[in-house]
Amino acid sequence: MPRDRSPRPLKKRAPQAPALSPRGARSERGRGPKRADKGIGGEQLEGRQAVRELLRASKREVREVLIEEQRDPSPILEEIVELATTSGVTLRFVSSQELSERSRTEVPQGVIAYARGLEPTSLEDLADMVKAGGSPGFVVVLDKVSDPHNIGAIMRSALSFGARGIVLPAHGASCVTPTVAKAAAGAIEHLEITLVPGTAGALVELRRASIWTVGLDASGPIDLEECAVLGEPLALVIGSEGRGLAPLVQSRCDVVARIALFGPLASLNAATAGAIACYVVSKARQ
Amino acid sequence: MPRDRSPRPLKKRAPQAPALSPRGARSERGRGPKRADKGIGGEQLEGRQAVRELLRASKREVREVLIEEQRDPSPILEEIVELATTSGVTLRFVSSQELSERSRTEVPQGVIAYARGLEPTSLEDLADMVKAGGSPGFVVVLDKVSDPHNIGAIMRSALSFGARGIVLPAHGASCVTPTVAKAAAGAIEHLEITLVPGTAGALVELRRASIWTVGLDASGPIDLEECAVLGEPLALVIGSEGRGLAPLVQSRCDVVARIALFGPLASLNAATAGAIACYVVSKARQ
Repeated sequence: MPRDRSPRPLKKRAPQAPALSPRGARSERGRGPKRADKGIGGEQLEGRQAVRELLRASKREVREVLIEEQRDPSPILEEIVELATTSGVTLRFVSSQELSERSRTEVPQGVIAYARGLEPTSLEDLADMVKAGGSPGFVVVLDKVSDPHNIGAIMRSALSFGARGIVLPAHGASCVTPTVAKAAAGAIEHLEITLVPGTAGALVELRRASIWTVGLDASGPIDLEECAVLGEPLALVIGSEGRGLAPLVQSRCDVVARIALFGPLASLNAATAGAIACYVVSKARQ
Repeated sequence: MPRDRSPRPLKKRAPQAPALSPRGARSERGRGPKRADKGIGGEQLEGRQAVRELLRASKREVREVLIEEQRDPSPILEEIVELATTSGVTLRFVSSQELSERSRTEVPQGVIAYARGLEPTSLEDLADMVKAGGSPGFVVVLDKVSDPHNIGAIMRSALSFGARGIVLPAHGASCVTPTVAKAAAGAIEHLEITLVPGTAGALVELRRASIWTVGLDASGPIDLEECAVLGEPLALVIGSEGRGLAPLVQSRCDVVARIALFGPLASLNAATAGAIACYVVSKARQ
């Protein structure tokens, strides 16, 4: 299945993109501190891969690491102990009961860490990063994906396929809960994380910054692999588990594409759809 | 990235495939009934998509459907009620407490069904199905994937990308637990499910039946997309969450291929790796 990689005409980039206030881009940055006050989360991490990567990446202050006593030895727990020791992080061996009482995930795998919360990246800065450097980058925008396992799993796949960051809707509560962090398996230490008041508005900003917005929806008129802009600065937009992309969000995408499915079910979990989309983008860039 | 789809030489199909007893293929079928006695599972289903597909597919006897009283109406619950009513299935509205007490998953989504257990397919019959029909089929073989969410998620993706069946190691306990069934979102009603005493032995049988065995491992010498046999009758072999493919299992594969990853983590969840592999196979067949 050789694919035509020559650019083909798509919907023309609209210089008359749906208008925000003329100061929209500045106000996006202007709102940054307020969003940061709400907090992204990431202060409590559970699970061996998430805690190991926190220590390996060494990008933020780690306050304490708790390890369950009488846990069978494992190479990854030993590595956590060694990393914590050499970097002077407080390490405490605690009872199963204490670990369990402190845990906020289903299975903490014998380890919890407490760290300084993650810092958000403004949408404007994220857009600059996507366009900077030798080769254009891409980001993933999650619109109403609500299952924390799915959010974390998409972060993990996105980073593994080369995404630069992830854009999430800002809620009252923090976004990177212990369950998200555990499913992300360390990806939160490396991905830029941007909180936005709404997905549709964020897409307008991204288009204004000359980043292609590609929505993923089962009803999309073209197959994602046939999308001509996969090698360009790109935002992949993933919709909710049940309903896909909202109509307003779809209307803000330059392209809406589908993943070809077969058979009596023909439905993917949101995390799976996101992973495959990131895979397709990474392949188009090789 | 145009790809060369012309067949290229791979490891030559070994007529001297590692020998089982000369009656290996027959004894595989001979063991079928014993494995069936152990049971595949699938008797208790929870979650809206799993229960709806049980009723829609109508392939096995449904004993009873329980729905939580005072549940907010939803189109999918209404469809379940309608399907159960028109097909004469006993339907009971129960208290939240009863549903919760009976539930064996984390979130039953207000519905539990009880049905006749699934019937296993022998490996020999599965191999025949993969080769029958106009276009060659493929199956997914899981080697030591232990997380029930991952097993179910792989079933869902496999079916959605056209796989015919799934091969699982037989344990003492049933394989299709309520958690597996829920994550599979109805895929268990359509996929052939084959239990085998061991993965390595099953791969020998599949190779003997002229089915290519392609293992997925981060250390694989070629990129999965460059594998020349993706359009042939195929078994994709997925390894465990932590360790990938066991050495013995790898040695029984015709090809070991990788999914190209980037960045500081560069590791995929087993369900994600399985989904992407099925996607790549389905794309190679379009």
